[in-house]
Amino acid sequence: MSLTDTEGESVAMANHRLLKALRREQVDRTPIWIMRQAGRYLPEYRALRQRAGSFLTLCKTPELACEITLQPVQRFALDAAILFSDILTIPDAMGLGLSFAEGEGPCFERPLRSRADIERLRVPDPASDLSYVLDTVKLVRAALGERLPLIGFSGSPWTLAAYMVEGRGGTNFSRIKGMTFDAPKDLHQLLGLLAKSVIAYLSAQRASGAQALMIFDTWGGILSEHGYREFSLAYMKMIVEALRSGEEAASAPLILFTKGGGNWLEAMADSGCDALGLDWTVDIGRARSRVGHRCALQGNMDPAVLGARPERIREEVALLLQQYGYGSGHVFNLGHGITPEIDPAKVAAVVDAVHELSEAYHR
Amino acid sequence: MSLTDTEGESVAMANHRLLKALRREQVDRTPIWIMRQAGRYLPEYRALRQRAGSFLTLCKTPELACEITLQPVQRFALDAAILFSDILTIPDAMGLGLSFAEGEGPCFERPLRSRADIERLRVPDPASDLSYVLDTVKLVRAALGERLPLIGFSGSPWTLAAYMVEGRGGTNFSRIKGMTFDAPKDLHQLLGLLAKSVIAYLSAQRASGAQALMIFDTWGGILSEHGYREFSLAYMKMIVEALRSGEEAASAPLILFTKGGGNWLEAMADSGCDALGLDWTVDIGRARSRVGHRCALQGNMDPAVLGARPERIREEVALLLQQYGYGSGHVFNLGHGITPEIDPAKVAAVVDAVHELSEAYHR
Repeated sequence: MSLTDTEGESVAMANHRLLKALRREQVDRTPIWIMRQAGRYLPEYRALRQRAGSFLTLCKTPELACEITLQPVQRFALDAAILFSDILTIPDAMGLGLSFAEGEGPCFERPLRSRADIERLRVPDPASDLSYVLDTVKLVRAALGERLPLIGFSGSPWTLAAYMVEGRGGTNFSRIKGMTFDAPKDLHQLLGLLAKSVIAYLSAQRASGAQALMIFDTWGGILSEHGYREFSLAYMKMIVEALRSGEEAASAPLILFTKGGGNWLEAMADSGCDALGLDWTVDIGRARSRVGHRCALQGNMDPAVLGARPERIREEVALLLQQYGYGSGHVFNLGHGITPEIDPAKVAAVVDAVHELSEAYHR
Repeated sequence: MSLTDTEGESVAMANHRLLKALRREQVDRTPIWIMRQAGRYLPEYRALRQRAGSFLTLCKTPELACEITLQPVQRFALDAAILFSDILTIPDAMGLGLSFAEGEGPCFERPLRSRADIERLRVPDPASDLSYVLDTVKLVRAALGERLPLIGFSGSPWTLAAYMVEGRGGTNFSRIKGMTFDAPKDLHQLLGLLAKSVIAYLSAQRASGAQALMIFDTWGGILSEHGYREFSLAYMKMIVEALRSGEEAASAPLILFTKGGGNWLEAMADSGCDALGLDWTVDIGRARSRVGHRCALQGNMDPAVLGARPERIREEVALLLQQYGYGSGHVFNLGHGITPEIDPAKVAAVVDAVHELSEAYHR
């Protein structure tokens, strides 16, 4: 049986370390990938970016986005590729006009300023409005073959809404928070539309070949617990339920990550997702005992550790593996994205340390 | 017996609602004060600031600092005054040269850049090096008499060290985090010196008349749990123990506040402090059941709620009181400082709502 026919492909891939760990099945070693592993800390990324021009050109040109997605997995023994894209592709497809000013983060030309602005929005059709993302997914899958799984992703409805209402990053979120208090109906209308959009978008990524999916809730952590449940978690739960109800449900595990959400892990696990992403402020062993067998855990080394000496990095990897303890269900990662100034040799040190030191926990 | 003799004074003051709540003794209503209640949202503060010049001139001139401390308690029915000062007075007294650039936050002219810089530091003598703070405390106490207790405060050793090493706010903390990984000995030396300094400083504030003390650990929340225990909590614990060992120990309850520390409340309660400050991401009811009878809880309304309509503010106050539930041990506050754009009328709305709605929980 050839590895390239459909059945062979799914069997080989289903046995991959990352997907097994996300399903909490036994693995030989703890799998590792790194948030923003395709990015500015890599000289080959910076070279391509310089030739191509803007960050958005890279995202929107499938051949380039594919090449960038593959860069880190060509260099390091990582256990997954993650789609090179941005969390704000959906609002961009809705017509808000995304751009990135150098060193300033994302900015929308037409942020939402009124009820009428919200009423004008439509759920984007991934096949037409976000075809560049799906084309990238297909190219990456063709290039990776059986070697590694590909993780697709989206921003969470709350996080997308926060950017769409604030217009840019770096604010104190007074507009979007104001809506939670004084215009909750309008906000719920927006969040409902975004949840539908994320469901269509992640389903399309999965249909195009993504084998695991992650929801980045970058700004859920700015809310109170009751605000988080009402305005962020409720909509992520909707997405989890919709993605689990289809035929392909079992084929792509779903990871939820709320930065700053360490207080709410039990509630997040109740959503029915397969895995929780953890930032570095959470003790992963304690998180495991709180969440029990309901979810795998992904994380959660402080990205700042990558600035340390290699021996110190190795110590921190050892500590984190020990905190998680014996058995499957751990996907090693940082607690947030890798930063641009990091020496790529440090990433190699982490990957090697994780693979080497984790074997003892899976015997 | 006159209320102004020593015994009368201590009895009257010990019966004050704030101090009783911090000791978890029965009260008639939930006491309230507000972080940064003396500050830029008040027109009378802005007027004084314009006349006086810089923020630091206000801090360092006892008559002006006293006047500003009293402004909010003259305007609102608050249950405590808090010293108008800055968390960075200790490093300034150590010779680092504190300044505030408009809209930029604090900045040190001579940040710590080497081991030699750390070795040159000495514990400031509050009586000489920080006399302006102690003079302010005395003036405020004389002005307040028996009416209200005065809260003194300091930054935590970790938070002070973070500013001293980074040189300013708004960084990604790569220098101080780098020290936790690659120069922990130097960092422990610095933190030990700062803990001694904070002990001397808070003891002197107490001896000058402060009736409750609060440690602001603004940046503890950027650490991993093991990093927090080693570099922040251990030194706050040292301070709690030192302040509890003296004769005046029982007279001034101690409040610990780590912004972003919601994951670590049990460990913070183990320090032996009287109360924990909570930011707004924590459900205060859940925090109460985690901490049990060990500590009072202070907080924790999202400061952004003050941007909402008065009826909505009242709803949020009601929710928070309900979350905490029946009985004493709750000091109402925001989960972080009040922001400059807030209408002072909203503060009046919160204070009234807390006093009115909390009565039912104390019968």
